[in-house]
Amino acid sequence: MKEIIAVVRMNTMNQTKQALTKIGIDSMFAHECQGRGKGLVDVKILSGAKEGHEEAIALLGEKGKLYAKRMLTMVVSDHNVEPVIQTLIETNQTGKPGDGKIFILPISNAARVRTGEIGPKAIV
Amino acid sequence: MKEIIAVVRMNTMNQTKQALTKIGIDSMFAHECQGRGKGLVDVKILSGAKEGHEEAIALLGEKGKLYAKRMLTMVVSDHNVEPVIQTLIETNQTGKPGDGKIFILPISNAARVRTGEIGPKAIV
Amino acid sequence: MKEIIAVVRMNTMNQTKQALTKIGIDSMFAHECQGRGKGLVDVKILSGAKEGHEEAIALLGEKGKLYAKRMLTMVVSDHNVEPVIQTLIETNQTGKPGDGKIFILPISNAARVRTGEIGPKAIV
Repeated sequence: MKEIIAVVRMNTMNQTKQALTKIGIDSMFAHECQGRGKGLVDVKILSGAKEGHEEAIALLGEKGKLYAKRMLTMVVSDHNVEPVIQTLIETNQTGKPGDGKIFILPISNAARVRTGEIGPKAIV
Repeated sequence: MKEIIAVVRMNTMNQTKQALTKIGIDSMFAHECQGRGKGLVDVKILSGAKEGHEEAIALLGEKGKLYAKRMLTMVVSDHNVEPVIQTLIETNQTGKPGDGKIFILPISNAARVRTGEIGPKAIV
Repeated sequence: MKEIIAVVRMNTMNQTKQALTKIGIDSMFAHECQGRGKGLVDVKILSGAKEGHEEAIALLGEKGKLYAKRMLTMVVSDHNVEPVIQTLIETNQTGKPGDGKIFILPISNAARVRTGEIGPKAIV
């Protein structure tokens, strides 16, 4: 079992949900969050900040603000990790900065509250 | 150390907090989120969607919408994982679809900001 | 790769962002959440609750309410974990209860949606 966290643009949720459903992934959770990736930050300001220039750091604190994003969380069987990543990339890739990131985390165990089932069968 | 993530109904927070306190778990974080589980989706529509029927997929995108849920996060010592899962199930189980899911994730390390402590003692 | 989750006070975000930028960490996500740590709960009430006194449990359910917090999430290379923890502690430590917690979780994999890159290079 793996947890897949995708942080993507706000406006791609419907097409993402439909594409995931098409490959059999129908359990998911969504949060609003705010985010910033490398692509959204001016590289010169960033390298200035890394060298300790106070102005660049102040500018980043101000300009490099966080953008509204959608965080999508799914827990899937190992054999579904690859197709889910491909589907998330296909439905969210515009090629422009801000397309988002996907993170895969190990899951130790899971439980379904309704039935009390514990283990991999809780997520299928 | 393990992270326990529970996604449960909105209206069970108070009884869940009280039950967790009773077994000694007093540190926790809560988010609002939106979620969907298998139990909330019409199985016929779902299998139609899996077979690629565009109508079923469109229907799911519309009908299989996400519901408001409460996400509860705790980081606990390994010996507390089992009692926390049992308590979460007992306080949230109605037997109806939508009761929720519990996920257990490994934690590599933890720190308490107030004291700067790093390691398992940061969470006790 | 590791995920670093920091739950800190609401009013320390700007200084935290600036300090993280200074050490080269420019990708992050932020959520509002509600939280409670041991330090925010009256210890006598807590031990009463653990012994099963219904009054203490009721009091905790009421008094030990959850406070508004900011949850900050970053995924960083292993060699950045230590400096990020130190930076988070330095910028958020007041020495008073409620300073917050930091959790480190293992990451199995990551992908950058814009380029389709999968693996450690997706986060640098």
